[in-house]
Amino acid sequence: MSIRAAILGPTGYTGYWLIELLLRHPGAKVTYLASAREELPNIAAEFPALMGRCELACKPIDAEAIAHDADVAFLCLPHKAAMAYVPGLLDAGLRVVDLSADYRLADAELYETTYHTPHEDRANLEHAVYGLPELTDRQRIAEADLIANPGCYPTAAALGIAPLLQRSLVSSENIVINAASGVSGAGRSAKPHLHFPELVDSYFAYGCGDHRHQPEIEQTLSAVKGGDVEVLFVPHLLPIERGILETIYLDPLDEDVTEDDLFEAFEDAYGDETFVRVRSEMPNVKHVRGTNFCDITVRLTPRGKVVVFAAEDNMIKGASGQAVQNMNIMFAQEETAGLL
Amino acid sequence: MSIRAAILGPTGYTGYWLIELLLRHPGAKVTYLASAREELPNIAAEFPALMGRCELACKPIDAEAIAHDADVAFLCLPHKAAMAYVPGLLDAGLRVVDLSADYRLADAELYETTYHTPHEDRANLEHAVYGLPELTDRQRIAEADLIANPGCYPTAAALGIAPLLQRSLVSSENIVINAASGVSGAGRSAKPHLHFPELVDSYFAYGCGDHRHQPEIEQTLSAVKGGDVEVLFVPHLLPIERGILETIYLDPLDEDVTEDDLFEAFEDAYGDETFVRVRSEMPNVKHVRGTNFCDITVRLTPRGKVVVFAAEDNMIKGASGQAVQNMNIMFAQEETAGLL
Amino acid sequence: MSIRAAILGPTGYTGYWLIELLLRHPGAKVTYLASAREELPNIAAEFPALMGRCELACKPIDAEAIAHDADVAFLCLPHKAAMAYVPGLLDAGLRVVDLSADYRLADAELYETTYHTPHEDRANLEHAVYGLPELTDRQRIAEADLIANPGCYPTAAALGIAPLLQRSLVSSENIVINAASGVSGAGRSAKPHLHFPELVDSYFAYGCGDHRHQPEIEQTLSAVKGGDVEVLFVPHLLPIERGILETIYLDPLDEDVTEDDLFEAFEDAYGDETFVRVRSEMPNVKHVRGTNFCDITVRLTPRGKVVVFAAEDNMIKGASGQAVQNMNIMFAQEETAGLL
Amino acid sequence: MSIRAAILGPTGYTGYWLIELLLRHPGAKVTYLASAREELPNIAAEFPALMGRCELACKPIDAEAIAHDADVAFLCLPHKAAMAYVPGLLDAGLRVVDLSADYRLADAELYETTYHTPHEDRANLEHAVYGLPELTDRQRIAEADLIANPGCYPTAAALGIAPLLQRSLVSSENIVINAASGVSGAGRSAKPHLHFPELVDSYFAYGCGDHRHQPEIEQTLSAVKGGDVEVLFVPHLLPIERGILETIYLDPLDEDVTEDDLFEAFEDAYGDETFVRVRSEMPNVKHVRGTNFCDITVRLTPRGKVVVFAAEDNMIKGASGQAVQNMNIMFAQEETAGLL
Repeated sequence: MSIRAAILGPTGYTGYWLIELLLRHPGAKVTYLASAREELPNIAAEFPALMGRCELACKPIDAEAIAHDADVAFLCLPHKAAMAYVPGLLDAGLRVVDLSADYRLADAELYETTYHTPHEDRANLEHAVYGLPELTDRQRIAEADLIANPGCYPTAAALGIAPLLQRSLVSSENIVINAASGVSGAGRSAKPHLHFPELVDSYFAYGCGDHRHQPEIEQTLSAVKGGDVEVLFVPHLLPIERGILETIYLDPLDEDVTEDDLFEAFEDAYGDETFVRVRSEMPNVKHVRGTNFCDITVRLTPRGKVVVFAAEDNMIKGASGQAVQNMNIMFAQEETAGLL
Repeated sequence: MSIRAAILGPTGYTGYWLIELLLRHPGAKVTYLASAREELPNIAAEFPALMGRCELACKPIDAEAIAHDADVAFLCLPHKAAMAYVPGLLDAGLRVVDLSADYRLADAELYETTYHTPHEDRANLEHAVYGLPELTDRQRIAEADLIANPGCYPTAAALGIAPLLQRSLVSSENIVINAASGVSGAGRSAKPHLHFPELVDSYFAYGCGDHRHQPEIEQTLSAVKGGDVEVLFVPHLLPIERGILETIYLDPLDEDVTEDDLFEAFEDAYGDETFVRVRSEMPNVKHVRGTNFCDITVRLTPRGKVVVFAAEDNMIKGASGQAVQNMNIMFAQEETAGLL
Repeated sequence: MSIRAAILGPTGYTGYWLIELLLRHPGAKVTYLASAREELPNIAAEFPALMGRCELACKPIDAEAIAHDADVAFLCLPHKAAMAYVPGLLDAGLRVVDLSADYRLADAELYETTYHTPHEDRANLEHAVYGLPELTDRQRIAEADLIANPGCYPTAAALGIAPLLQRSLVSSENIVINAASGVSGAGRSAKPHLHFPELVDSYFAYGCGDHRHQPEIEQTLSAVKGGDVEVLFVPHLLPIERGILETIYLDPLDEDVTEDDLFEAFEDAYGDETFVRVRSEMPNVKHVRGTNFCDITVRLTPRGKVVVFAAEDNMIKGASGQAVQNMNIMFAQEETAGLL
Repeated sequence: MSIRAAILGPTGYTGYWLIELLLRHPGAKVTYLASAREELPNIAAEFPALMGRCELACKPIDAEAIAHDADVAFLCLPHKAAMAYVPGLLDAGLRVVDLSADYRLADAELYETTYHTPHEDRANLEHAVYGLPELTDRQRIAEADLIANPGCYPTAAALGIAPLLQRSLVSSENIVINAASGVSGAGRSAKPHLHFPELVDSYFAYGCGDHRHQPEIEQTLSAVKGGDVEVLFVPHLLPIERGILETIYLDPLDEDVTEDDLFEAFEDAYGDETFVRVRSEMPNVKHVRGTNFCDITVRLTPRGKVVVFAAEDNMIKGASGQAVQNMNIMFAQEETAGLL
């Protein structure tokens, strides 16, 4: 029997891509689209690409009604909005995959200083599971009622750094993550700096050590390392729709480390993983566009710097694809179902 | 002595390009930037490209103050706003180049049905001069106090069709103008359908016989022809910043018309014109980017259809460049000053 | 049992997209990649997006070997190359879907003057079936051994015009097709005018009544009409990867025709068709990107011109998607299998 | 009297932009275009944007003829080709600005290992002057017969790092330059990986410590520092035509360094320089497009990393604009002539 999926906030980009992925999923279907808008749109009017494929009318966000029609609820809402709905959805018996940031940081204080808002659902925060399948214990995902789906940048960063930290090949200090993302990562709301004529032909950094994904990256890496890991995260905006490339600068822990050691660490970590492709060539955001893959390579420079290159589609492995991957694990489906 | 220029509405794209052009002009300088905003910005904060080149603070729109500092006022305001200021500016002794649509249509009733607003300055409308130098009597521009600067689409359309109508080579019926424009033509205000991720990789028509430039095109061509000319104008949006290409379909008036006749008509009309380049190759918006040129070619198909291709930069020949060209004529400067 | 598919010429864009589509197809799989290159590449080295999903090594083009491993052969070869292989493939017992132009024009003389090369397989040309499922008798496709897969532009043109001609709503004269295509339509070979810095920010026409798709369009429409139909086809190049929009200008046959009549004709023609979406809004190439849909709308202008807007993905409905649709019909699969 | 300029290799992008800049220059004009092609093109046929503005026919590369018509020769040739012509041009009495790499590295051995070719003009290499006006002694440029015009990446890197090294604010070790460039930097020759459909929507790194600009950067910084400086340079390709952004990671030499100290260093270094704009906001390649500016800002992160952001147009300040700037100094013109 098909998994019945509800999407809260389907009119944004992550909601849209969830619909696209679930349309191709052999064992799941979208049964409820829940929107907080006053005028509830038909989803195909919002996204004409869905005409003739998914023409559901959005309904109000009503936990009981959703629970009646669905087994799992995907939250594609802004942070803060998400945690207002989660308790009700869980109470109604739904399993929840939250694509917002609300349950990603286990430390509520850190959440509050990072997102400048009180955390209003500490009870559920305690048992939320951070769902990055290649790094999280899959059993915990399988059993979870509430998945905090990782951020786009943190997914590539964690996948690109964790194996090297775990195997003590690189230092946990002086880690620099130079990241670049397509514009869909900024959401669907029109803003002056995202106006087409302003952005086309442009390229610039929009943060330097102050992006909200930095603590999330550090949380994952610190857990992996078993000790404090600090990174410097510098995001840039690419004048394309989709794709993230992170160029990560690390110091080897030991002079004797070779490039082969580095590749071995990645092969070892991801040899059995479908969605991480360890490559010898440079990853390109175009090669992962529309897919749930994260492509990774690594270089050891002659003067002894380790550089990791990690590419993903911010909308898929960085958001909706990973959400489906988590759903597959939660509902004991083939992990790759609908994602290849 | 330099022409002193004021720009009203300098924070939009046509205002910005006027500043860029006037910065390079050997005989003119920007002396006053007048904005209707409550918080008056420094123009270099609005357009960082201007840092170190033009760092004027915007001032309020005050006709007397402007007249004190400037000889000519360029209006880069929305239609309706422009005609509210023009009388005062003229009274204060300024000569005015209006880049809005307010004085383009000589027939006030046509203006009102086209722009859905009453015309509130019929007195000045009567003596406004439509400033398309290659087609207008230049003496009238030279003597004008008020220039209606043509629309972007109408400029290319008129330049591409007028010589053929004038020489009775094509019919004044069944004219189809298939046009495509870069996004800057839609202005600088962020709107959902102009949001970068929505527009990138897109292409679509956004009108069909109902665009407000259609009557303007017909007015110019009817004047040229000395009789009613009707066109069908169909605009499309290109996912690039700048440039217009119009592909214009016409019927020859006579079976004997040859392609040579058509080229001759263009050479005859524009042989002495700097800013219209009659080419044998297909015009490309990239070849006119940043310039005041309109590139034109023509084909006669084996089955007897005349097709004109006309390209311009909507921001330059289609707006600010043509405004400077008009200013040059008004102030007896070399017509090409600052524009090559 | 799965349909076993061979692809000849998999290193071009239509070959690549065929692989992508067949990877998602529930009832087909790629079993043989046949390349004419001297050094036979692994397909994932050519298209890194295929890593971990399809890593077949290309093999030589050997009809017997292909027939051993496959039920159907897709030819993604240049015209002229295709007809050199077709007889051998048919003799070896394969069914063939040819994506080149070699079997599209039923009149060999017309082929020869259009493609400037002798037709070297007139025997098979006679029984090749032009596979545009929405317009061709599907029974003929089902029974065909050799499908001529339609050209990208002709698909949208035929779908956009045929219903109106069939129902005698528009004249078969004075039809103008103003078309624009993304760059993938020009193939994968690097050429100076397709070099990225030349093409970005550009837009231009590259033909006017002399494109090789014009006779193909006329052939289809003449068959539909039961009499000669002549069109003027004018292609433009869009600075995007994929997508075709055709803006088609027609004359109504009768003064009494209404816009409702026009829409009715389309609804009537395509009401049961999955892959043609008749819309009230303007089609956008972005809404059909990556899909097998052709989106169509129509307008009747106040002055009595009929304008049809038709959008498709040139790589999918305009090539590889339609090829899969044909395969589905040939092998009695659900026509939409792998395509939604 | 106007400076008479010859351009060798005018059919590439740096040659084209030189022509564009010199067309606007009040005190210089292009008098000779010298091409090594067999069929000598008219430059406006190569670059239709030049129609009606510069329609010179290219002539052969003949030092005597060039010297007869020009005062200065700009070499826009590939490395290796340039040094074959320089001796003859100097002997003929021309002053030379070489935009290739042939005279940039003072150490001929380093040149040979970097460019994998013998240096064939060591005599002139000895007295060539590296012309980065903001960092080089301008008197040396003024008196030079042979200017080595800096590389695109090295210009931004040197401008972004030199003031901090000079004032001993940052360490000369562990410097990482994460750079991204538009595609024009790769030249005008069509290549498979620069084919439009391959590159659009893409982003990737194309080197890691092995780019030929790395030694050039180190040479400049070592001279500034008075001791060895080593950098790691990692270039990426942006899917836009023009622009370079470098994000540079440095370690402060001292714990007490403040962000104000860093800004002060830049203000101190560039306060009198027109072409370096020290900004508080993040530089954007769009803000320098078409200009000779390099925009710079700097951040000190809470955990004590120094990050410099430097943007330039690779075609202007990174190539042809800087060449004109050098020419202005050599010929005692206003340094900014033709460049604002």
